[in-house]
Amino acid sequence: MTLDNIKEAQRRLAPVVQRNRLDHSSTFSAMTGSDVYLKCENLQKTGSFKVRGAYNKIAKLAELGGVNSIVACSAGNHAQGCAFAASSMGMKATIVMPKTTPIAKIKATEGYGAKVELYGDYYDDSYNRALEIEKTEGAAFIHPFDDEDVIAGQGTLGIEMTEEVPDLDYVIVPAGGGGLLAGVACAIKSINPNVRVIGVQAAGAPAIALSFKEKTHICTDVIYTIADGIAVKNPGNITLELINKYVDDVMTVSDGEIASAIIHLIERTKLVVEPAGATPLALLLSGKLNVKGKKVACLLSGGNIDVSTIGKIIDRGLVSRGRKIEFSIQLQDRPGMLEKVSHILAEQNANVISITYDRMSADLEFGETILHIGCEVGGREHSERVAKALTASGLRVLGESRR
Amino acid sequence: MTLDNIKEAQRRLAPVVQRNRLDHSSTFSAMTGSDVYLKCENLQKTGSFKVRGAYNKIAKLAELGGVNSIVACSAGNHAQGCAFAASSMGMKATIVMPKTTPIAKIKATEGYGAKVELYGDYYDDSYNRALEIEKTEGAAFIHPFDDEDVIAGQGTLGIEMTEEVPDLDYVIVPAGGGGLLAGVACAIKSINPNVRVIGVQAAGAPAIALSFKEKTHICTDVIYTIADGIAVKNPGNITLELINKYVDDVMTVSDGEIASAIIHLIERTKLVVEPAGATPLALLLSGKLNVKGKKVACLLSGGNIDVSTIGKIIDRGLVSRGRKIEFSIQLQDRPGMLEKVSHILAEQNANVISITYDRMSADLEFGETILHIGCEVGGREHSERVAKALTASGLRVLGESRR
Repeated sequence: MTLDNIKEAQRRLAPVVQRNRLDHSSTFSAMTGSDVYLKCENLQKTGSFKVRGAYNKIAKLAELGGVNSIVACSAGNHAQGCAFAASSMGMKATIVMPKTTPIAKIKATEGYGAKVELYGDYYDDSYNRALEIEKTEGAAFIHPFDDEDVIAGQGTLGIEMTEEVPDLDYVIVPAGGGGLLAGVACAIKSINPNVRVIGVQAAGAPAIALSFKEKTHICTDVIYTIADGIAVKNPGNITLELINKYVDDVMTVSDGEIASAIIHLIERTKLVVEPAGATPLALLLSGKLNVKGKKVACLLSGGNIDVSTIGKIIDRGLVSRGRKIEFSIQLQDRPGMLEKVSHILAEQNANVISITYDRMSADLEFGETILHIGCEVGGREHSERVAKALTASGLRVLGESRR
Repeated sequence: MTLDNIKEAQRRLAPVVQRNRLDHSSTFSAMTGSDVYLKCENLQKTGSFKVRGAYNKIAKLAELGGVNSIVACSAGNHAQGCAFAASSMGMKATIVMPKTTPIAKIKATEGYGAKVELYGDYYDDSYNRALEIEKTEGAAFIHPFDDEDVIAGQGTLGIEMTEEVPDLDYVIVPAGGGGLLAGVACAIKSINPNVRVIGVQAAGAPAIALSFKEKTHICTDVIYTIADGIAVKNPGNITLELINKYVDDVMTVSDGEIASAIIHLIERTKLVVEPAGATPLALLLSGKLNVKGKKVACLLSGGNIDVSTIGKIIDRGLVSRGRKIEFSIQLQDRPGMLEKVSHILAEQNANVISITYDRMSADLEFGETILHIGCEVGGREHSERVAKALTASGLRVLGESRR
């Protein structure tokens, strides 16, 4: 793997790939005391960087000749990247996906002209089925990351970033199987060894971070993270070798940090970024990496996130910011009490969103009840004002739980 | 108002305003059978086009001299636009907002260096307070739309769009007070009278659509729409005159159509667009405007939408797509029944999100209960499979309600 391979990939990709600017973000610069740039691969065709590697690989196969169909296994961005690349090349594509794959992802992949085969409950079953198709149907298997042509395709992002902001100090890149990190690091270090390249993984799926630290190939049997795009148990061999050679550090972020970064991106940059793609900003905002006064590029690798997941992340975010709160109020169980509570809430401009009565708590005297009432408020200060108003009117507020 | 005023504004704005390309959208082109372009002013500084008009007005005041403070009244994008423009110009800015303004909007406006004064329960009260400040403090009042310099600033978007795609057939522009529509229409028709300029309003706040149709100034006393950015009762005089002169038609879209467009933008373009900004795409996707085979630009005017509103829109969208469903099941009120139901749901891969028992329905025999169980499913086909499985196991499904 050299810079020349990546430049060759860049020539192949030029007519196909959308080149988005490395945008300066004044908001995140101010928040971190550094100069922050965002590379928005969420706006890339198929919604992620994966199209780069898939296209480079498949276009090269087409150039070499003798291949007219491909097969891949993926429930995510690699599926759409392969489907798009194969159809641009006039090749037949079969994508094997686990049976549990959300319908939206199946439809999107089919929308790019691929045949989707649902097989097995887990990725490993689907993977084996894809290898079977490779053998029986003579289709070329496209590995999602451990392939030099795929890595070279992803590496084109490294060339673009150094061209767009030549004096970057740091580039932060998400890592799952490691293809993107390996390719970008190889490109950037070959062009300018002074740029520090930092990989970032989800704390719940840290195989590359562990492997990098221990300088040996480590797999993680149990993984759990909202960042499905980088939830990989077994990183690549080629990718790990390149990462060990070119990357300065690999760090991790929690799901909470990722969710908070997603909300910040929605609110401040009006961009929808998937959990894996938000990890570089999550790392930056966590303060774990000291970049004060430096020029830092975050590679927002993709934007393919289910709307129901966005809904859940927003809900959690509203709770953690004190925008949703539940008051538990001990009341006499008699007419008029709900009216009393709701009058105060209306006066305080709190919007009621849920209400339940508890008459079975062991702590209750006969003739008492606990009212759990959930409210939307403007933030912590507002919820404190509401709590004070409830108490001031003689109500017994047992507690507030953020929910 | 002439094209020269707008060109003058363009020169003023050049060093300040971000110029986003008019991006081709293959997704929306395929959905509508036309060539769809998106002008992403949600990515503009301050999150909306409003900064253009405010900056042009305030910069011109600075050029003329004698003014060193401004005052405006707004709970939305005009507030941030004025605050940003005044601070760039080194002027003091006071923004009067109704007391009910969400904290996030207050903070954003203060973040651009303005002093925020909360006054009154309604816009009209705040507006009168702003006029008072104009008199007592000698601050220049910046009207949100009915001002030629403001209109000229918004009109710069018209020049940009005709430069970027010279052979457009249609441009669709949101309208509230009418400043954006008036400015863009004036610019475009002056450059190329063949482009059809269509205004779009929320059906619940249709003052300009009515005024345009009746060719007289109509106010709407009661307005209701999720599109707060264009919820205006009384359109401008200057704006209406320009709209009557330059605009081809003004149409309306429902809140449901707006919400659906917002979700499509999130899913397919990874962009966060506020309700007012999504109205052009909502009109296009509604099919009310026949644009088959034509080149159409949608002006996505802003992206300032509260995350809790996004959450609510996503929830409604999931329901209308059959992704959330509630089954009501009549059961014998005895141990083991919940286990039976939940076993079937687990087998069918439906995720339980809510559960309540109803033992008080008048239709129930003694010893019976109704279980209301809410589920997340993949879509309508999936929910039908789940319903069949419940019925097949002898359970009495009274109904399904999408929720």
